[in-house]
Amino acid sequence: MSTIDEVLQANEKYAQKHASRHLSPRPTRRLAVVTCMDTRLTKATLGLDDGDAHIIRNAGGIVTEDALRSLLVSHYLLGTEEFMVINHTDCGLMRSTEEELRSMIERHAGTASVSPERFYAFKKPEENVRKQLEKLKSHPWVKKEIIVRGFVYDVDSGRLKEVLT
Amino acid sequence: MSTIDEVLQANEKYAQKHASRHLSPRPTRRLAVVTCMDTRLTKATLGLDDGDAHIIRNAGGIVTEDALRSLLVSHYLLGTEEFMVINHTDCGLMRSTEEELRSMIERHAGTASVSPERFYAFKKPEENVRKQLEKLKSHPWVKKEIIVRGFVYDVDSGRLKEVLT
Repeated sequence: MSTIDEVLQANEKYAQKHASRHLSPRPTRRLAVVTCMDTRLTKATLGLDDGDAHIIRNAGGIVTEDALRSLLVSHYLLGTEEFMVINHTDCGLMRSTEEELRSMIERHAGTASVSPERFYAFKKPEENVRKQLEKLKSHPWVKKEIIVRGFVYDVDSGRLKEVLT
Repeated sequence: MSTIDEVLQANEKYAQKHASRHLSPRPTRRLAVVTCMDTRLTKATLGLDDGDAHIIRNAGGIVTEDALRSLLVSHYLLGTEEFMVINHTDCGLMRSTEEELRSMIERHAGTASVSPERFYAFKKPEENVRKQLEKLKSHPWVKKEIIVRGFVYDVDSGRLKEVLT
């Protein structure tokens, strides 16, 4: 049985206990979080519940064009007023350089013509978070009244540490 | 107190009970999920636990260039072998057309020169999932041996429904 089939079985059990209340797509706590796709990050880490916040995730927790699109929809269409950027220790993207990652994938996958422009490899999570905060804070559509803060999550201690700019 | 400050307090409580085992960045169940940033989607819905799977999230659950970058890192660097795309009912992006969304944001935010190329508004989740599956399955770097399946999550019933291509 594939993992997806197991997920479907688990979802069937979940659905039988699913609360029937209808939650709005507007996050009640007006928060949007940009973080990594990593397996060790969860809403529980942040004390967040269903209905509370938008969670945007990609490899690294990078403020890409797509993360920006999502944040704009989150703020302008669905009313969030605080943005939180979280990178974490022991990230897969810290294990190699941009060039090593690109050539490894190209070696296994073939043609280079479809390669993403960047993989966003990085070495130091604090420095990387700082870059993401700069991208956000300098974007003309991220208004000054939006609270923007950045953090590194320590996967071993379970603790968030704020990155000051 | 801002929501982010409340999150930090919740995280401090969480960290005190955080299991000290060190999980690998490689998902043990070799699964990557692309889904929406919506507040109502959680790992619990899918029966997934810490360490199990990569979760990639953006507005809509769209296979954007950034989601593709993340999936490539997930497969080639971190060993996932199944990709799951999940859109959901009552998505914020179903509430307006591409043009309405763009002009609403431009009206509130000002200059159009920084607008994302697309916001990916859509009307029918099933049709939208089908598009994302086509993008994935036709990508030369998504190899044939990777299992790719798509679903619509019903936010009221809590149930996943498979989209057949």
